[in-house]
Amino acid sequence: MHNYINNGGVTSPKGFKASGIFCGIKRKKKDLALLVSDSLCSAAGVYTLNKAKAAPLLISQEITNQNISVKGVLINSGNANACTGQKGFDNAKFIQSYCADKLNVTSENILISSTGVIGQPLPVQKILLGIDEITNVLTEKGGLDAAEAIMTTDTIMKSFAVDVSLLSGNVTIGAMCKGSGMIMPNMATMLAFITTDARIEKELLREMLSKAVNISFNKISVDGETSTNDMVIFLANGKSDLEIKLNTEDHVIFQEALDDLCITMAKSIVSDGEGATKLIAINVTGADSQKDAELVCKSLANSPLLKTAMHGEDANWGRIMSAAGMSGANFNPSKVSISFDGLPVLQPDFKILLDEEEAKKILSKNEFSININLNGGKYSCTWWTCDFSVDYVKINARYRT
Amino acid sequence: MHNYINNGGVTSPKGFKASGIFCGIKRKKKDLALLVSDSLCSAAGVYTLNKAKAAPLLISQEITNQNISVKGVLINSGNANACTGQKGFDNAKFIQSYCADKLNVTSENILISSTGVIGQPLPVQKILLGIDEITNVLTEKGGLDAAEAIMTTDTIMKSFAVDVSLLSGNVTIGAMCKGSGMIMPNMATMLAFITTDARIEKELLREMLSKAVNISFNKISVDGETSTNDMVIFLANGKSDLEIKLNTEDHVIFQEALDDLCITMAKSIVSDGEGATKLIAINVTGADSQKDAELVCKSLANSPLLKTAMHGEDANWGRIMSAAGMSGANFNPSKVSISFDGLPVLQPDFKILLDEEEAKKILSKNEFSININLNGGKYSCTWWTCDFSVDYVKINARYRT
Repeated sequence: MHNYINNGGVTSPKGFKASGIFCGIKRKKKDLALLVSDSLCSAAGVYTLNKAKAAPLLISQEITNQNISVKGVLINSGNANACTGQKGFDNAKFIQSYCADKLNVTSENILISSTGVIGQPLPVQKILLGIDEITNVLTEKGGLDAAEAIMTTDTIMKSFAVDVSLLSGNVTIGAMCKGSGMIMPNMATMLAFITTDARIEKELLREMLSKAVNISFNKISVDGETSTNDMVIFLANGKSDLEIKLNTEDHVIFQEALDDLCITMAKSIVSDGEGATKLIAINVTGADSQKDAELVCKSLANSPLLKTAMHGEDANWGRIMSAAGMSGANFNPSKVSISFDGLPVLQPDFKILLDEEEAKKILSKNEFSININLNGGKYSCTWWTCDFSVDYVKINARYRT
Repeated sequence: MHNYINNGGVTSPKGFKASGIFCGIKRKKKDLALLVSDSLCSAAGVYTLNKAKAAPLLISQEITNQNISVKGVLINSGNANACTGQKGFDNAKFIQSYCADKLNVTSENILISSTGVIGQPLPVQKILLGIDEITNVLTEKGGLDAAEAIMTTDTIMKSFAVDVSLLSGNVTIGAMCKGSGMIMPNMATMLAFITTDARIEKELLREMLSKAVNISFNKISVDGETSTNDMVIFLANGKSDLEIKLNTEDHVIFQEALDDLCITMAKSIVSDGEGATKLIAINVTGADSQKDAELVCKSLANSPLLKTAMHGEDANWGRIMSAAGMSGANFNPSKVSISFDGLPVLQPDFKILLDEEEAKKILSKNEFSININLNGGKYSCTWWTCDFSVDYVKINARYRT
């Protein structure tokens, strides 16, 4: 019902323009992105739960929490404008207002977002000159440039789009995201911007975004860290003239496409985790409750001992059992079975089936799954994580976020 | 009121003998320790909260939960006898019984403890031969050998003892511990064995141990992992003929000495954290509740981003604020002040005082403190953690626990 578009991005849906430029916040690389819709959009947002929320996040959150339509989003990388106090808040308001003027809308029609170093004053003058420039170079092909400009320690640009075949016709969903460290639910964890030319009433847009985020961005972990700045924004401008209405078949089809796109983005962030060499799906089944399934997934996804063992391609199922055991979930260790992809490793009553050679073949792949059946109840959950490498430490001992 | 004894250990108190030998579980190093008291002891234990508890732990826990007196503790390293099912339980019972026979006591007078690889069958025959040998070489100077035999990835032997001057006379407390990875509350986290020649009734012994553990072993983190095997055991044989009684001045003096000894052990474990190069005290003050103080301490002590920044000697206070913000504690970020040792870094309203050069001097030391005043309520807490280095990853990608 939906297909990925080659080189797709936030400008793939009708009526969106974008650009990404260098304005001097970083040393060399692109650091300012602007995404704009021809007409005002319905907007929904999901935001970090970190107590130390960045100024731009607080400003954008206030807008999407109300029924205000949105023209576009201004994003800078290289400076998070977090932990910057009243001055940081004033700076954020000022660039928001300046950008709004240039686009002939009011301040509250513009969302703003920042990522980068915490606690440094925003270089306002550079950003104002950047806004002068970027508002002149917005194009319908600018999605990839924008995706490039929001990167920080990312090594791969993250831009995607899908064509969705509704019963009523075709619509498009586009997206870009960034993030490779500080990756951890709840929410929080990265920036993602999603666009569509479907028409979606605000209440439904929120509900659909919340559902998609919960099974994608809220199920990944690179290092257990939840950042001060992160958000997912979803804009719908209705340019396709097709509307998604609650509880219709099109609603189901569109939600599936959105879920899939968000999972693709979430996995792309984990794959590009700082120093990561492997994308690992953690599937927990047979839990007594949804909460227990989540606890085990989360504990495994965040376990440095398991993640270093996976880096060493070591079929160390003892660390899986130990991480499950310390998760706080209720289960009986002697009932647990574990497999890597389709290879059984442990069966109930601690019956060890481990074929080290076959296991090594699986663990040496770039992508595999760890499957834990608690053999208790009927609840299950999937998370994605990455291995933990020497490079993670090197990157984070050097880079100041 | 108490002084550390040079080269002290579990045999420093009167009436304790010990030894540590190689019996063939590891490739070369000592792997079997036995600690025995001349007469039966009051015994107390604190155990891991991990669901996947190892067989020897379950057996020892059952003994210390009852009013059974204890003759000694048999400890092997190199094999955890965890996740080994009924067979592992039977094996543990068998070596316990064999050791008890050799010492002319019943099985339940012998505590057992294991540490090492998870999920591997215990090499029972080697351990039986080891018991034959070790019961013949117990001495009053064997504390250091025993401390050596319980080491796994530890790089430093951890053996301590204090002389305690009570009003009623002098008693001694001795101790040994191991642990350098999988370090994280609650409890759990390592092995520690404490001996004293004071006479202490079992109920009070438990209470004193629990209090000491809570402000020491439960306040350290190397990597946020809680293992399947870990325990703290406290044995009192009364050989000094001095008794510690509830709510006496001697009780207070003895508790102080015990607390200090446990904190010394806890810090020695963090210092020797896998790959660690720095011991970092995290002091949180001004919290609205004890729980909030604990949450902030724990979040900072476990933050890979903060721990890698400390490894890089980078005065990255933004990561401190971010880790505090994601802790779940209630506080106002704009009221927070932060210092490294005595050097103010951040004051309320995000006033940055950071002198990079001075900060670097502090962070380049082997031991320093990070102090966070939330400037809210009156609650405070201290944890200890270490930096997160390239070597942590290397050790854990190679070593199978």
